[in-house]
Amino acid sequence: MTPYPTISAVGAAVFNNEVDVGVVPIENSLEGSVTFTQDLLIAQSGLSIQNEVVIPIDHYLVASPGVAAESVEVIYSHPQALAQCREYLEARFPAVLREASLSTAAAVADMQGSRVPAAAICPQRAAEIYDVRVLDKGIQDNTTNQTRFVVLAHADHAPTGHDRTSICFSFTVDRPGNLYSTIGEFASRDINLVKIESRPTKQELGRYIFLIDCEGHRHEPAVAAALDGLRRRTDMLKILGSYPFWEPRVE
Amino acid sequence: MTPYPTISAVGAAVFNNEVDVGVVPIENSLEGSVTFTQDLLIAQSGLSIQNEVVIPIDHYLVASPGVAAESVEVIYSHPQALAQCREYLEARFPAVLREASLSTAAAVADMQGSRVPAAAICPQRAAEIYDVRVLDKGIQDNTTNQTRFVVLAHADHAPTGHDRTSICFSFTVDRPGNLYSTIGEFASRDINLVKIESRPTKQELGRYIFLIDCEGHRHEPAVAAALDGLRRRTDMLKILGSYPFWEPRVE
Repeated sequence: MTPYPTISAVGAAVFNNEVDVGVVPIENSLEGSVTFTQDLLIAQSGLSIQNEVVIPIDHYLVASPGVAAESVEVIYSHPQALAQCREYLEARFPAVLREASLSTAAAVADMQGSRVPAAAICPQRAAEIYDVRVLDKGIQDNTTNQTRFVVLAHADHAPTGHDRTSICFSFTVDRPGNLYSTIGEFASRDINLVKIESRPTKQELGRYIFLIDCEGHRHEPAVAAALDGLRRRTDMLKILGSYPFWEPRVE
Repeated sequence: MTPYPTISAVGAAVFNNEVDVGVVPIENSLEGSVTFTQDLLIAQSGLSIQNEVVIPIDHYLVASPGVAAESVEVIYSHPQALAQCREYLEARFPAVLREASLSTAAAVADMQGSRVPAAAICPQRAAEIYDVRVLDKGIQDNTTNQTRFVVLAHADHAPTGHDRTSICFSFTVDRPGNLYSTIGEFASRDINLVKIESRPTKQELGRYIFLIDCEGHRHEPAVAAALDGLRRRTDMLKILGSYPFWEPRVE
């Protein structure tokens, strides 16, 4: 497994055949969509969603070896991770400075480079691969914190019978009922929409690209017919991929 | 005008009658929605959208008095502002370290506290109120960078004839066609939907609260009838407010 510093670097690595597949976060149960990933899927050609994985998020509090929790003067992390552990930090480290890092991996580096005793909030994986001491774990305020990741590849997945399809589309002309008639292509065929989002076109405020996740595979007749209908009703339609729906394993 | 440190502090100040109105960003033409503001509108009772304002975003590069652009070793800003000036920074300051701050206002403080010669990226207003030297302005990569702000108050706006209405709603049971039949209440009355978004319920991945902006005022008969229809079709409906649509002034 090769780590890349940014979401777009993962997309480029798949596109350039440096790796077969890339894994990027697309949605968190508390924060919502990861817009960087949505924008990558919209803009980058040659990438499909081949699979999805849902992972519970477990935040670890780590320090350099030899640094005790009581001596910590500053805690680094990505602003989202700091926000997800706010109640814990206010209860246990009320007087400790919180500093924003560009990522949770960068937070560990910021901690290691700190002139004063420092800690970092990072995921379990980072706590395992860096030379750090785990001060605490599971420090997130909300226990239902899960992130959905998508697996990016050159092609999507063959039908399995329990699939989802992700698409994006836009309209050149803004007309009443545009979106309604478009999603009617799904409703009239009893296809459930899992998710609908809009992202800016980046050209003008108020112009959007819509992202929809629906149930079913693009090779199933109903979904294929709905997508044909969409192609006629929209000015741009991109099929981001069909892939097996994630189901939690029973342990 | 009283500055508050966070979006939720602005909401609380309006709610507690510390101020009559509060102004918060809700959408940027490049970055999309400000999810903090969406979540505040969903969760906080007693707040309505009374107006909207669209402001072009102009990033300034500032330093402490006496610091020359050539000597700068680190540039602080909020990650979004750093991202919006990426091409400029790579062309003009390729070797300079970029550091994340919690806000553009915090970036000015981080810059002032820096041990090495530092600069910060901040809006024009911050460049005016702090004791800083303007090194450059208009440094954002994309010139169509605009932010839409909403004015929060205890009540929304009386009809003006060119209004918009913002609402949010959710369904307890996930059924095919739920969203379709809901937005059909607008389409069947020729009411244009300006925007549709989903936010997590924060209870479970895959459950959403939908946010819609439509044309028209909630006191206009067609919009009122559509909202009545929505009330019957959804399990939660909150009218966030009707307010005059922002139109750019001709100068």
